[in-house]
Amino acid sequence: MKIKCTISYDGTQFSGYQVQPNKRTVQSELEAVLSKIHKNPVKVYASGRTDASVHAVGQVVHFDTSLTIPFDRWKKALNAMLPDDISVTLIEEAGEGFHARFSAKAKEYHYIIDRSEQPDIFKRNYRYHFPYKLDVHSMREACELLQGTHDFTSFCAAKSAVEDRVRTIHKIEIEEVDNELVFSFIGNGFLYNMVRILVGTLLDVGQGIIVPQEIPNIIDGKDRNLSGKTVPGHGLFLWKVYYDN
Amino acid sequence: MKIKCTISYDGTQFSGYQVQPNKRTVQSELEAVLSKIHKNPVKVYASGRTDASVHAVGQVVHFDTSLTIPFDRWKKALNAMLPDDISVTLIEEAGEGFHARFSAKAKEYHYIIDRSEQPDIFKRNYRYHFPYKLDVHSMREACELLQGTHDFTSFCAAKSAVEDRVRTIHKIEIEEVDNELVFSFIGNGFLYNMVRILVGTLLDVGQGIIVPQEIPNIIDGKDRNLSGKTVPGHGLFLWKVYYDN
Repeated sequence: MKIKCTISYDGTQFSGYQVQPNKRTVQSELEAVLSKIHKNPVKVYASGRTDASVHAVGQVVHFDTSLTIPFDRWKKALNAMLPDDISVTLIEEAGEGFHARFSAKAKEYHYIIDRSEQPDIFKRNYRYHFPYKLDVHSMREACELLQGTHDFTSFCAAKSAVEDRVRTIHKIEIEEVDNELVFSFIGNGFLYNMVRILVGTLLDVGQGIIVPQEIPNIIDGKDRNLSGKTVPGHGLFLWKVYYDN
Repeated sequence: MKIKCTISYDGTQFSGYQVQPNKRTVQSELEAVLSKIHKNPVKVYASGRTDASVHAVGQVVHFDTSLTIPFDRWKKALNAMLPDDISVTLIEEAGEGFHARFSAKAKEYHYIIDRSEQPDIFKRNYRYHFPYKLDVHSMREACELLQGTHDFTSFCAAKSAVEDRVRTIHKIEIEEVDNELVFSFIGNGFLYNMVRILVGTLLDVGQGIIVPQEIPNIIDGKDRNLSGKTVPGHGLFLWKVYYDN
């Protein structure tokens, strides 16, 4: 049987999602617990990796099991055995054709900025502190121009080996909540560091370093040097992965 | 010159406020930074200690200095040198008679409970997860009976050596915010573990283990065994210290 598992994690103490030798990763913690339960090695497949210090509210993974454990007990057992910075929020049976990565239709990321002059120390691992003046209206204009289907080479880490860099962003929104700015992105897929470079570019727009009307040229230039900085990972959350139904 | 310094800290990685040999404490971090700036040992006096994993939003400390540095530069220098889980929020000159502990007129503590069935992992170090049914109305009745001037022996850690256990609680309030319950306590002083035992007792009231009308007997009994459990430190915040003016 194939099990679909929705998990949340605090990325602060992880060297990212994916297994790396001698590093603490989300995948290695999950596989260690599942292998213990199964008394056999179990491999876990995620919707995609996340980098060091990046968080997840709704990451999705799947694994195969021959055990017949009721779903509520699966959830309790996993949460009891997992470290307290990973939490299983939902366990479901998935059809045999399901794959956490290849069945995903879209993903939603949030990036949160703390604009207070003095950062909230209780949120220091979950917010990027950016206390500078921002023209949110211009930033929203730039969002409109970034939405749609484009080759996002200018918004992809230069070291990425991916060849097809055409992606569709269905929606970018910026919400002001107290002293915070919450960016949300929904798209059919995101290149390496793409959300963090998009946010860095939008912050340049907010500061008047880039005007919104330049966005189409930045996209067309297909050059990482044209866009803004890569903002830090600790403000980023993999919020939700969308599948059919 | 005497300097009054308001600080905020995340207690998660500290063995409490007060210096202890070979432990990471808030006081030792503060004194290390100030001694470095002064090129001489500097002693720091706080309004009171806090235990391991207990946080502070508005702890107050004072120290003496012969340096003449403008206040805004004091704040910047300290924040640049302090670890990122301590933050100086305000620096002021204090009169020569000021003492962070002995001049304090009242203190305010908050204790926050996460009532969600599944705890928010991003708040796991800042909320006590307590997903059980609570009768908040009864808890508020008990608060009324706890307010005032009493001998709080029943609400003091048994190991405390303090002899005079009469304290005045000016106000206890319980606020429901989304899935959280925020307890706030203002009093002229609090005994060792007093806030955490008061919250544990109020949770017993909320669950019907203790009825509000028993509170006067629990106070009169002057026996730690009559009150509720000591709730964990990580839900507790030293919120504010009150001085004259």
